[in-house]
Amino acid sequence: MNKSEIQQQIIDVVEAVKKSNPMAPSITNTVTINFVANAQLAVGGSAAMVYMPDEGETLARMAGAFYINMGTIFTIYEQTLPHTAKTLYDNKKPWVLDPVAVGIGELRTNILKQFKAYKPSIIRGNASEIIALAGLWELDGGTDTSRVRGVDSTDSVVAAREAAVALALHTGGAVAVSGETDLVTDGETVAHSSGGSYFLGKITGAGCALGGVMAVYATMANPFTAALTAHSIFNLAGAKAEKASRGPGAFQVCFLDELYKASAEGIANNPFNTEEV
Amino acid sequence: MNKSEIQQQIIDVVEAVKKSNPMAPSITNTVTINFVANAQLAVGGSAAMVYMPDEGETLARMAGAFYINMGTIFTIYEQTLPHTAKTLYDNKKPWVLDPVAVGIGELRTNILKQFKAYKPSIIRGNASEIIALAGLWELDGGTDTSRVRGVDSTDSVVAAREAAVALALHTGGAVAVSGETDLVTDGETVAHSSGGSYFLGKITGAGCALGGVMAVYATMANPFTAALTAHSIFNLAGAKAEKASRGPGAFQVCFLDELYKASAEGIANNPFNTEEV
Amino acid sequence: MNKSEIQQQIIDVVEAVKKSNPMAPSITNTVTINFVANAQLAVGGSAAMVYMPDEGETLARMAGAFYINMGTIFTIYEQTLPHTAKTLYDNKKPWVLDPVAVGIGELRTNILKQFKAYKPSIIRGNASEIIALAGLWELDGGTDTSRVRGVDSTDSVVAAREAAVALALHTGGAVAVSGETDLVTDGETVAHSSGGSYFLGKITGAGCALGGVMAVYATMANPFTAALTAHSIFNLAGAKAEKASRGPGAFQVCFLDELYKASAEGIANNPFNTEEV
Repeated sequence: MNKSEIQQQIIDVVEAVKKSNPMAPSITNTVTINFVANAQLAVGGSAAMVYMPDEGETLARMAGAFYINMGTIFTIYEQTLPHTAKTLYDNKKPWVLDPVAVGIGELRTNILKQFKAYKPSIIRGNASEIIALAGLWELDGGTDTSRVRGVDSTDSVVAAREAAVALALHTGGAVAVSGETDLVTDGETVAHSSGGSYFLGKITGAGCALGGVMAVYATMANPFTAALTAHSIFNLAGAKAEKASRGPGAFQVCFLDELYKASAEGIANNPFNTEEV
Repeated sequence: MNKSEIQQQIIDVVEAVKKSNPMAPSITNTVTINFVANAQLAVGGSAAMVYMPDEGETLARMAGAFYINMGTIFTIYEQTLPHTAKTLYDNKKPWVLDPVAVGIGELRTNILKQFKAYKPSIIRGNASEIIALAGLWELDGGTDTSRVRGVDSTDSVVAAREAAVALALHTGGAVAVSGETDLVTDGETVAHSSGGSYFLGKITGAGCALGGVMAVYATMANPFTAALTAHSIFNLAGAKAEKASRGPGAFQVCFLDELYKASAEGIANNPFNTEEV
Repeated sequence: MNKSEIQQQIIDVVEAVKKSNPMAPSITNTVTINFVANAQLAVGGSAAMVYMPDEGETLARMAGAFYINMGTIFTIYEQTLPHTAKTLYDNKKPWVLDPVAVGIGELRTNILKQFKAYKPSIIRGNASEIIALAGLWELDGGTDTSRVRGVDSTDSVVAAREAAVALALHTGGAVAVSGETDLVTDGETVAHSSGGSYFLGKITGAGCALGGVMAVYATMANPFTAALTAHSIFNLAGAKAEKASRGPGAFQVCFLDELYKASAEGIANNPFNTEEV
């Protein structure tokens, strides 16, 4: 698939989402849950968040795609997350996994191990998280989890390339690594998306909102295109919002406005390149 | 009661709240909990949110009115919500029920069924939620819950009129249905309130914040007046905020500012009409 | 220590934090958790929030300092909070306690009693909370908890001075009391910090964000300096943000921007005075 074909797919999914307002439910952390929902709404999707096992399963059946973020976990997630992920897998529903803080805590580790079998359509994280998840799943490019520092990455995107490809080959979906230049791969093609803003690292929840928006796009596009479209709109909106902002407070406000205002063509034209693995 | 008498009641409650800063605690969803609290503060009230059963009961006794929103539920709510609602009912404290996502999940359904006996003073929701709750409580105008789609309505306000009246006659309180034109009824009078903004549907939590503000006003007014006052200030502030906003991010900020700045007269003069059932 | 020495310490900690981006994890309420994280990031720190017992312990070992806020509690906190506090105490890690709603609910009371032994490095609250905590711990200046009203104070800062000093002498750390003029003491010196904004009381989470920022500064300064630095930046940023804001919505945005922009010298020069106990 060449670049202009990918750009056409980006245009198609952005417009389809704006037209049909698809619901992409989430099980996500309490820190940034509001920002995730508002980002999903801003791009034209619909949001719904739950914690209980039967609700996760019900929404997994109803939804076009689902977002699971491990940022803050509760005891009930021992049931909720595997049941929901299994339902998504069994029903061939696309879902996005954000393995936040992989390696911290026994329950998070146990759940993330189980997710290997339920093959998330998109795995999204920073470089350290992607490397650590590949390690947890015993895939190429992975290491142990010692380099994850809370929500922050201590590795570069380049260093996560092998792990990202290995994860994508395992799931048959896409993997997206956030960084100064973002990497998206389906195991065959690697795309790099650029733009964004320094302020995206000075607010909480940019990565979570990105994952939520990927789930919205995954309701109407293949995993690779959904992930790249989400990175493209974030990079476009981030760059525009930074110009209009004097600090991280104003940036958050402008960023939501720019997500809302971004045109399909503008998103498709945000700089990216592709290469074969 | 004629329109000018209602307007005087609106003026009275808005001014009384600004003067006395009444506390209206909430048990509400984690997605929009911050926006609910900030909206309650902006109109002059005070907020407090809890999850534990004994805390719900304690605050139910202390509070002037209470807000219960079913958006995200936890296992502990099996105890917390019925205990709190019973305490409110036994102590004749006004309370607002927001039956978000009625029909999704066994626990939510069980709790909502129990609430029929504890007669919420105000029931607030979109058309689909109001129709579904009437169905769950086996009242006129209700149907099964299949038309609730996450937090979104698939029915019109007009279609929910019979269910709203039936619910109000059951509780002896008021029912408020959000939509392009909002409906508020106490089972005898039906008021329609207009204004608002397209952006209220493009942000998360407008309905939740509306319920929280109804609880603040319910500390110092009858349920019908409290519900209509809340819709009036939301319609007024929404319309003003839209004019000053280029997107949903700026809209949220302006909306809180307009809630804060709205005068009692301005709120009372926001367009509404009334008719007998 | 004279005033200019304190000012130099303030400059040192503000600059050290901006340079090294220290992580100060939190266990904090769901209402304002996003605002806490964004405030911590705005001053140059890093945030991580958890609920599970083993995660609290893990982060307590990794962190430079920790923030525990009792605003909304879950059943699991029966394990999480004492385990985390004990880990912090045993490992000599500084931690900030925000005893929100002290006196409401059996679990909150039980946990707060246990915290007496784990000696929080900084105790932060409004006057009523500080007086009530001293009462719960049977220290001088304390009374029972009947004057705490949700999150609001019904006592003046002056009235909490004896309790604040007694708490600081017990812990060997610092106590900070928020009010029109804020009080910070280590049991020997009492500092009063002024500035701030009326709007800090018209938004939710100003106190919580203050506690979170104290934890960030406590990673690199003694408790007294960390607490006073946090009050100083909040008073500076609050006063500046008020001038640029027409309501509480805009104020929150501007406030985060001003936290981000505040210089070390500006913070050190925010008005305060000191006296001996």
